[in-house]
Amino acid sequence: MDIVLVSPRNPLNIGAAARAMANFGFLRLSVVAPFEAHWREARSAVGAPELLASAQQHPTLANAIASCTLVIGTGTLTYRKPEQRVVSLPDLPPLIQSELVQSGRIALVFGPEKHGLTRNDLALCHMLLQIPTDPRQPSMNLGQAVAVCLYELAVRSASIDVTANNESRPSATGGDLELLADVVEQAMAAADYSRGSMLERNRHELRLLLRRLSPNAPDTRRLLGLFRRIIWRLNRTRAHD
Amino acid sequence: MDIVLVSPRNPLNIGAAARAMANFGFLRLSVVAPFEAHWREARSAVGAPELLASAQQHPTLANAIASCTLVIGTGTLTYRKPEQRVVSLPDLPPLIQSELVQSGRIALVFGPEKHGLTRNDLALCHMLLQIPTDPRQPSMNLGQAVAVCLYELAVRSASIDVTANNESRPSATGGDLELLADVVEQAMAAADYSRGSMLERNRHELRLLLRRLSPNAPDTRRLLGLFRRIIWRLNRTRAHD
Repeated sequence: MDIVLVSPRNPLNIGAAARAMANFGFLRLSVVAPFEAHWREARSAVGAPELLASAQQHPTLANAIASCTLVIGTGTLTYRKPEQRVVSLPDLPPLIQSELVQSGRIALVFGPEKHGLTRNDLALCHMLLQIPTDPRQPSMNLGQAVAVCLYELAVRSASIDVTANNESRPSATGGDLELLADVVEQAMAAADYSRGSMLERNRHELRLLLRRLSPNAPDTRRLLGLFRRIIWRLNRTRAHD
Repeated sequence: MDIVLVSPRNPLNIGAAARAMANFGFLRLSVVAPFEAHWREARSAVGAPELLASAQQHPTLANAIASCTLVIGTGTLTYRKPEQRVVSLPDLPPLIQSELVQSGRIALVFGPEKHGLTRNDLALCHMLLQIPTDPRQPSMNLGQAVAVCLYELAVRSASIDVTANNESRPSATGGDLELLADVVEQAMAAADYSRGSMLERNRHELRLLLRRLSPNAPDTRRLLGLFRRIIWRLNRTRAHD
C-alpha cells in the first residue's frame, strides 16, 4: 500500500507519518507538492529515516497514484457533501479483502493539515475514508490520523496479502484512468461538447464517473481506442468543413 | 475513563493527546509531574482548549489514579520483562466489558516520551497494554499512541457505558490499594521483615501483588483493619521488650 500525503505544510507531520508507517510495517511513502523543500530531514521521523529517504516526491496527486488501482481519500464530511462512496475506517479492512482490490495496488491519500483534500483531488479517489470521530471535534492532526488508519489496517488486515496480484483481470491504474479522462476530454472538445464555464465542471464529473465505473485495464484500453478513433474522425470532419 | 500522562517532556505531545481525546470523545485528562510548567498553553491542542484547561495536575502517578479501580499502563515489551498481565490493544475493548471493570473508574496511563513508564509506575498498574507494532520499530510517538488507543476504545467499546457503576461490589481504588500497601509496609517494618537492600524490592513486589489480587473495596477495608491491628500489636510487644 502507498501512503500519499498531499501538500503537507509541516515537515514534522511528514516525519510523524513516516514514523507511524514504520510502527505498523508500511514501506511506501509519496509526498505531493510539499510546502517545505527540506521535508526529508524531519526529526520527527524517529526510526524511519530510510523510509523518508526513499519516499517519492510528485508534483501532482494524479502523478503519485498513476500506478494504483484503488485510491482511497481520507477526510471528514463536516464541510462537504461526498461525491463518491464513503467508508468508515472499521469497515475498510474487510472491504480491502474483496476481489476488486486484491488485484492491484492501493493508495491511501491524506490531504493538507488545514483543509484536507480538495474536491479535485477527491475526484481522483474511488472512495472517501472517514475516521469515526466526535462530531463536535472531527478534525484530526495529520500524524495522528495516519497512525490510526495504519493501526486499523495492520491489525485487521493481517491475513490479507496486499501484494497479491490477480493477473487475470487487472484493474485500471490511476495513470490509465487519467489517460482515458484526457482522451475523453479531447473528444468532448473536438465535438464542442464542453464550452466555457462548463469545461471545468465536466472535467470534474468525468473523473468521478470513471472511478464509479471502475473499468479494468483491458476495458480501459478498449475505451481509449474508441475515443482516439472518435477524435480522429471529428478532427477529420472538421478539416473538411 | 481518565487519560493520564506521566512526566511528558514536550507540551506539544500533551496538546496532541488532548486533541485526540476531543476527537474520540474522552473528557478527563491528568498530567503527572510535567517537565514544562506552561503545558496548558500547548498550541497543538486544536479544538481542545477547555480539555487542557480543566485537566488535573498531580505530583505522582499514585495521586493521579487514587480514585481509579482499574489502572492500565501502556508500553512496549522490547526492553523489559512484564511483571503483570499483558493485553494487546485489539483485545482491550471486550475485556473492559467484563464484570471486573464495569464496577469502577478506569485510568489509561502513558509514560514519558523517551523511556515509557518506569518499573515503579508499572507496579501501580493492573495490566500492561501493548499496541501491536512492528518489532523492528515498536516505539510510537506519544500523541499517536494516545490517538490509536482512543480510536480503538471509541470504535469498539461504543456499546459499553464506561460510567456504569455496579455499587454491589465496588472495586478498590488506586487510593485504597496505596493505603493498604502503606499499612502492610508499616507492618513489615514493625516485624523487621524488610531490611536494608530488600526494602525497595519488597515495596515493589507488594504493589504488584495487590494488583494481582485485585481486592474489592470491602476486602481492602478488612485487610486494612487486620494490618492496623497487627501493627498495633507489634509495636505494643516491642514497647514491652
